[in-house]
Parts: sequence; C-alpha cells; structure tokens
Amino acid sequence: MDGKTKPPGSLGRLEELAAQLCAIQRRVPPQTDRKRILLFAADHGIVEEGTSAYPQEVTGQMVANFANGGAAISVLARQAGAELEVVDVGVIGAVDGRALNRKVRAGTRNFAREPALTVAEAERAIAVGLERAQHAADSGVNVLALGEMGIGNTASASALLALLTGADAGATVGRGTGLDDAQLARKQAVIARAIARHRPQAQTPFDALCAVGGLEIAALVGAMIGAAADLLPVVIDGFICTVAALAATRIAPPARDALLFAHRSAETGHRLALEALDAAPLLDLNMRLGEGSGAALALPLIEASARLLREMASFEQAGVSTKRNP
Amino acid sequence: MDGKTKPPGSLGRLEELAAQLCAIQRRVPPQTDRKRILLFAADHGIVEEGTSAYPQEVTGQMVANFANGGAAISVLARQAGAELEVVDVGVIGAVDGRALNRKVRAGTRNFAREPALTVAEAERAIAVGLERAQHAADSGVNVLALGEMGIGNTASASALLALLTGADAGATVGRGTGLDDAQLARKQAVIARAIARHRPQAQTPFDALCAVGGLEIAALVGAMIGAAADLLPVVIDGFICTVAALAATRIAPPARDALLFAHRSAETGHRLALEALDAAPLLDLNMRLGEGSGAALALPLIEASARLLREMASFEQAGVSTKRNP
Repeated sequence: MDGKTKPPGSLGRLEELAAQLCAIQRRVPPQTDRKRILLFAADHGIVEEGTSAYPQEVTGQMVANFANGGAAISVLARQAGAELEVVDVGVIGAVDGRALNRKVRAGTRNFAREPALTVAEAERAIAVGLERAQHAADSGVNVLALGEMGIGNTASASALLALLTGADAGATVGRGTGLDDAQLARKQAVIARAIARHRPQAQTPFDALCAVGGLEIAALVGAMIGAAADLLPVVIDGFICTVAALAATRIAPPARDALLFAHRSAETGHRLALEALDAAPLLDLNMRLGEGSGAALALPLIEASARLLREMASFEQAGVSTKRNP
Repeated sequence: MDGKTKPPGSLGRLEELAAQLCAIQRRVPPQTDRKRILLFAADHGIVEEGTSAYPQEVTGQMVANFANGGAAISVLARQAGAELEVVDVGVIGAVDGRALNRKVRAGTRNFAREPALTVAEAERAIAVGLERAQHAADSGVNVLALGEMGIGNTASASALLALLTGADAGATVGRGTGLDDAQLARKQAVIARAIARHRPQAQTPFDALCAVGGLEIAALVGAMIGAAADLLPVVIDGFICTVAALAATRIAPPARDALLFAHRSAETGHRLALEALDAAPLLDLNMRLGEGSGAALALPLIEASARLLREMASFEQAGVSTKRNP
C-alpha cells in the first residue's frame, strides 16, 4: 500500500481496512467481488411486557417485505451489489417461500418470566448460523455482512449486554424502534427486573444467551464464529449485531479478528457494546434501523479499500516521482 | 420518507440527505443514476519556497496516472460507477490527450512574492469551472463530485482560508502530502508572511483568490456556482475543495444549498473550513489525499439515500402494521 501513487497513509482508514482484509482472508490482495448479506429473523416473547413500539406480527410482515424487495435492506443490498439471504430462525407464523426455513421455535419465551431458550434451542440456533456461514464460504462469498429482524430484539440485546458487561439497564436500554419517555421507563424497569432474575444463573456468555435469548442473536453468534473460522470477513451492523459480536468473541475470542464494524447507531447501548469490543466503526450516520442496513452501507467502503490495493499503480509503474525528502 | 416501512427517522442522515437532494434538484424522488467526478489540475508557483513534500512535476505525472486508471480516484470512480473528467487549468508542461485542455496559464505565480493570478486569469479559471458544470448538467449528470490535483495547493488553500476567515497560518497550515516538523514550520512561516503581505489588498473573496490563487481552486469555485445554478447537487471533497466552497459561498451565497460535504479530512485547516461553512461531513476516515477521493466514497451513500426514497415500499404497499401507539 505504501508503494501506491499517493502519499503514505493518505488513504487513512481505507489503508488499515485493506490490511485487515488481507489478514482475515490470508491473501494479498483480498477479494471482495462476492458479497452476501445474511439476515436472521425471529420473534421475542418479551413483547408481552409492552417493550416494543410495533406489534409482533411486523416481524413476519417485514420478512415478506424483504422478499418483495421493498424494505430498506432490499434497496441497500441492490445498491451495494450484494446478495441478500433471509433466514427464519423463529418467526411466529408461516413465512413460506419468503425466507429460508430454519425455524428453531416460534419465538423465544418471555424472559421476564422464564429463560428465553433452552440449551438445546440456543445450540440449534447457533448451528443455523454456523451452517449459513459455511454455506456462504462454500458458495464463494468473500465478504459476509450480517443483519437481523425481530420485533422486541433491542430488549433482548439490552438484557444480554447487561449480563455480559455487568452494566445496568439504564446504560443498555434504549428507545428501539421509537418508544416515548414513559414506554422507555417501562422497558428499562422490565429489563432491570429480568437482569436481576437471571444474573445468578447466567455465569457464562452461553448461559446469558439462553437466559435472555434471541434466536436471531444466537444465529448471529454462530454465523460470526463460523465465518471467522472460514476466513470470511464479517461486517457487523448496529446494536443487536454488536451485542451478538460481544457474545461471540466471549465464546470464541479469535473470532474478533474477522469482525469489521460498520457504523455507530443511535441506539443507547451501542456505544457501550462497541467499547467492550474496542471497536471503531466506519460510519456514523445516526441510523437505528437494523436489518443490516448499516452493514450494507459499509460494503462499498470495504470493497473500495480492497480495490485500491489491487488496482492502484505504484510510483514505478506510473512513472511518478517520489518525495523530495523521503 | 416517513411512510416507508421503517420507524420514522431510523435512517438518520440518509433521510436528511434524500430531502436535501429533492430540494436541490427540485424534484421528488431525486435522480442519482448519472454521476460525474470533475477533477481540476494546476500547478503552483509557491512550491519555489519549498512548501511541498513532492516535486512539481508530480502534478502532470498524476494527470497521466488518472488517465491510465492507476490513481486512487481512478479506482474509486470505477467503484462508485461515476464518470471521471480531468481538466487541465494550469499544469506546467503538456498533458495532451490525458486531460481536457483548458490551461489558463502554466501554474500560478509565487504568491510569496507577488499576486498569484491577475483578475483576468482568475476570471478565466472560474469560467472554466462554470463551463464544465454546465456541460455536466447538459449531459444529464445528476450528481457532480469535485476534486483537485496540484502540488503545492494545500499552501494556496491555507493562505486563502486565512484571508477569508481572518485566522492565522497556525490554524490553517498543515502537513499536506506529508511534511515533517521542520518543513511544516517553514511552510507556516512562508504562509504567515504571504498573508500579511496580501491581506490589505484582499478585501473581497475574489481579491483573495487572485492574491493566493490556485487556478484549480478558482475553477472549483466556478464549478460550484455553476452547478448550484443548474440544480446539480455538488459533492465537496476535502480541504482544498472545502476552502473553494467557502470562497464560492462568499461570492454567491445561494450556492451553499447545493453543496454536500463528503468527509472530514486529516489536513489541519479542514475543520476550520467546515465550521466556517456550518458543514457536517458524511464520512470521517482520516484521509488526506484529495483528488476527489473522499467525494467518490460518499457517492454510494448519496445514491443510497435517493434510492431508499424511490424504491422502498410504504407500510400500506407492503401490508406492514404501523406503530401500536402512534
């Protein structure tokens, strides 16, 4: 990169990114021509507690919207030149033909009352993620972006972040898709009680995942670990994905090296989750949608970094003079 | 945008960007399918004072590199799906066939000793910018990104920024393509003396432009004013372009509305220039290359914002339930 026709370091983070891609893929230059966005969808029992601004049926409706090409991620996948694979790991109701069916169960249990997932269920959801990462690698995908859809999943991710870091609900719970002040206070109280209830049993990251769940979060954990093992760079989206990344790296620390953080979202707990991972995201656009939307927007930057390394001429090739005082 | 299948505001700055594009183009949805990067190249007499890390012949050599497709901006234009037009407004030596020939003169005069440009020369350079913006609009281009190449032009831009804002050389002069501490101190001293020399005569933004020049800076000023008049959104690159934008908006204040700021560069004076324009750039990637490289990287974000408005389904179209408590 230092031999290319530009002052050394002048491409800033793109130079670091190119080096990181080489390290993850273990080749120079890295390949970025085949990009896939892998989106896991599932429902959440916690919505019984009134923690979400949207009704639960929206999860399945949005899966149909993804398939019909009308959702934000549908547009952003086209714009990024990326494939979009939607996997149902636990949507309530049928989404036949609209998503790959890997339903583990119809939504999690309400973690305000009981553990969200059994050990077997969490393992199955992780296995779905491992399988889809493997499939991506086998299909020749060379950059994998991750996203999620699940009404109620900021509640699940906030509780998981609290269990993983020891932070309290005040620091990890935010407005999700758009709660007002009273609804936010209610959500914080629900999560605070749930954390207190589960903390004694949630001794390991995996136990915490079972306790406050998220079938799509478990699948994301599996996809990250699987992709890292397959030398696939993984682009991490917003709050939910970053909390999944924290769980994944606590379970399998070497997976950290394969993760590229797309953006800093507007959701309250995201900053804390990024700090826990020592992650500096590429974008900061005040977004809070999920679906992999931030990851999709980072793909052109990631691809650009690889192409600069691959396609730029060196000073020698281009016949350009080097520094006067090198 | 609020009727699309997403929580209101959840796409953050992309929603603002889409609205801004509509306002500039005066149509809903905005069009972004045809993008052009317009790059002005010229040389600078100030390099006699030893203010640059690279020798002057690099300007012309890089113009050849742009044409041969080996420069960073060549790669980034391909990645963004944008046309690249390189215009010679004052490169020393022949760059026949490598760039559009609009040479006003072979480089500026050394502004440490005398005014860089006569009134007629500055006017001709501005006219080149106006002409190329008009050409872009006439060709059906709907987003114009701007860039520059010119060994010595951070010195010229730093002096211009100081004259336009009243700031001193300590705040506006940076390392450019990579000066060491001693070279930076020398550059600051040269610019400080030049500012003191020219300030009494540089009473208007145009006078300041003549005094410390930049043929490519003057062309950028013209391109911005022309594009704004032609309802073309203009993507502003880094330090040099932002200083040109400050001059353009001082000369023609309504031009401000057409400007989209791509990134915050690592060059010292950029922050000050952005503040003077009340501009919040889209990206912050620690870059300091110029050439329009930051502007090219912002193009996919700008295009994405327009496509979201154009292609996303509404709640009604997609049969998705709206908020429980709207």
